[in-house]
Amino acid sequence: MKNVKVILWGLGAMGGGIGKMLTKKEGVDIVGAIDIGAKLGKSLYDVVPGIERGNREDVIVGTAEDVIKPGAADIVVVCTDSFTSKVYDKLVFVMERGMNVITSAEEMAFPQAQEPELAAKLDEIAKKNGVTVLGTGINPGLIMDLLVILWTGACETVDHIVSRRVNSLSPFGPAVMEEQGIGMEVEEFNKKKADGTMAGHVGFAESVGMITTALGWKLDKFEQDMEPIVTDVDRKSPYGFAKAGQVAGVAMKGWGYVDGEMKIEMDHPQQIEPEQVGVHTGDYVEIKGIPPVNMCNTPEIEGGIGTMAMILNTIPHVINARPGLKTMIDIPVPRAIMGDMRDQICEECKIVK
Amino acid sequence: MKNVKVILWGLGAMGGGIGKMLTKKEGVDIVGAIDIGAKLGKSLYDVVPGIERGNREDVIVGTAEDVIKPGAADIVVVCTDSFTSKVYDKLVFVMERGMNVITSAEEMAFPQAQEPELAAKLDEIAKKNGVTVLGTGINPGLIMDLLVILWTGACETVDHIVSRRVNSLSPFGPAVMEEQGIGMEVEEFNKKKADGTMAGHVGFAESVGMITTALGWKLDKFEQDMEPIVTDVDRKSPYGFAKAGQVAGVAMKGWGYVDGEMKIEMDHPQQIEPEQVGVHTGDYVEIKGIPPVNMCNTPEIEGGIGTMAMILNTIPHVINARPGLKTMIDIPVPRAIMGDMRDQICEECKIVK
Repeated sequence: MKNVKVILWGLGAMGGGIGKMLTKKEGVDIVGAIDIGAKLGKSLYDVVPGIERGNREDVIVGTAEDVIKPGAADIVVVCTDSFTSKVYDKLVFVMERGMNVITSAEEMAFPQAQEPELAAKLDEIAKKNGVTVLGTGINPGLIMDLLVILWTGACETVDHIVSRRVNSLSPFGPAVMEEQGIGMEVEEFNKKKADGTMAGHVGFAESVGMITTALGWKLDKFEQDMEPIVTDVDRKSPYGFAKAGQVAGVAMKGWGYVDGEMKIEMDHPQQIEPEQVGVHTGDYVEIKGIPPVNMCNTPEIEGGIGTMAMILNTIPHVINARPGLKTMIDIPVPRAIMGDMRDQICEECKIVK
Repeated sequence: MKNVKVILWGLGAMGGGIGKMLTKKEGVDIVGAIDIGAKLGKSLYDVVPGIERGNREDVIVGTAEDVIKPGAADIVVVCTDSFTSKVYDKLVFVMERGMNVITSAEEMAFPQAQEPELAAKLDEIAKKNGVTVLGTGINPGLIMDLLVILWTGACETVDHIVSRRVNSLSPFGPAVMEEQGIGMEVEEFNKKKADGTMAGHVGFAESVGMITTALGWKLDKFEQDMEPIVTDVDRKSPYGFAKAGQVAGVAMKGWGYVDGEMKIEMDHPQQIEPEQVGVHTGDYVEIKGIPPVNMCNTPEIEGGIGTMAMILNTIPHVINARPGLKTMIDIPVPRAIMGDMRDQICEECKIVK
């Protein structure tokens, strides 16, 4: 079987990081790369920090029209946006050229939640072209949803779920610092929250949608809120700084109601340097049910590498899946690919034979 | 869509318990029951403790020949044995009559590990008959294998895995007390261990096989050992008793070697009344990798209900799967079925239309 052929669309921290990871795996080749601006026309191996070319053939960064051609690859990894509406045209462009596609766009982890019409269209276009489209990452995609769902597999009944991720933003770069309001004054945070420009975590609606759909609960209502985490002391991370009295992070909460009862509680405080103020980070799943579950993972699993790994590790599942829009509840559990990626691929599902 | 139709083969603690659980779910009917001896000819609802018939049609316990007829059900739940070789004929009997089959037999969670020839035959027979066969339970099937695999999905690399389950045997009945040597003298335990008649936990070879296969590791060697847990104080559980100096449980350990290195460590001490001697029960996953994982679930998730739930909750996945022998790494994650079971079924895969 030929190596798995991958095209990277978007070479930022996420897409570039996946590229770097892919070069360390067996049975898989990067055969194309797409980006915009100054990266165009340069070598992938010059554009992505820390990636090693070794003996590989060079890959020159091109436009989508140059790179996405029928039969060019088994799958395209799209890491350009967070929202389904923003990434939609790219996903369609890939699928209409007969390739599978996987994306880090958070809303695409369960696009049925906030974009049911686009989700239906993506499913239709995927089936028409005999390919598969999936969105995934560490969260949404694993920690606050799929992991919870897996635990319920051992339950006769589930009455109430708490899904909590208490994490540090310190490893992240300038873009995340800005998105999460690190170093903002509280007044500015509240203004941005009020006018809807404060992003916070994108994914609660998707995680709650995934959990309720998996369990067969009809979701009556979903609500979320965010509060600034105001620091009492100066906090400094490699790319962030919050003076005492400023915003050091965002505490997101979400609630899913089923049959008029609040059944799912999402709790996700993200901040820089939590240890400095005695906050212990971790991932938590608490299920009231028969039997109950009381899980923690401390410290929290790292989000940046975790998301790259989740995308890389689900490449075989996406290639193997029946055509259509898939989410993490439709495919087998993700797993670290420690051997040859081709060992995980069903030959008849491969595009580049 | 018609309700999902289920036949129960084996009405002991496990099969009967699954039957009782099924009567509390929507969209699913028990349409047949098979057992031997005094249960034959009686009503399922008289034979299984605590099950409620309600308005349901009666189900009379019959022989396999009476009950397993083409088109009689979508799936048969076989809870009669622990070993692949013992349950093999029953699985074939069902599949040759065109029905899917799921079993609690521990070795069937990954029969490729210890019975590769039977596993290949089961896969062939399943495909020939267009049906699916799966073995599952809480362990093997979830806690010491699938859960570990799920966590690795967020890892770029995995160097070493510890999978630990420290559980209480106190909720279990007389059969488990005997299997696990509760109340035995140490000398007798060692004699039975030496002559291979001390069962201990069945499943390490299967869990290690599942993990290595999922990750693409080539397993060089698998070893396991068991030691008696000798109590310093008298311990009494509802069905078990161990005097000071006697066996209160079995500590199983297992090791999986990859490329000459011990990569997977399995650790599973099971005993009655662990709290009495200060042992805290729980489920643990420790992964040395990038990133690392350090998970615990305390106390451990209950094994009896957990296994029944796992089997019930994977019924839709087995019906929906492509034909063949499947294991938990081939199908979507298990989840509690809290709505109508038919909502989880793909119509074209249903047998009883």
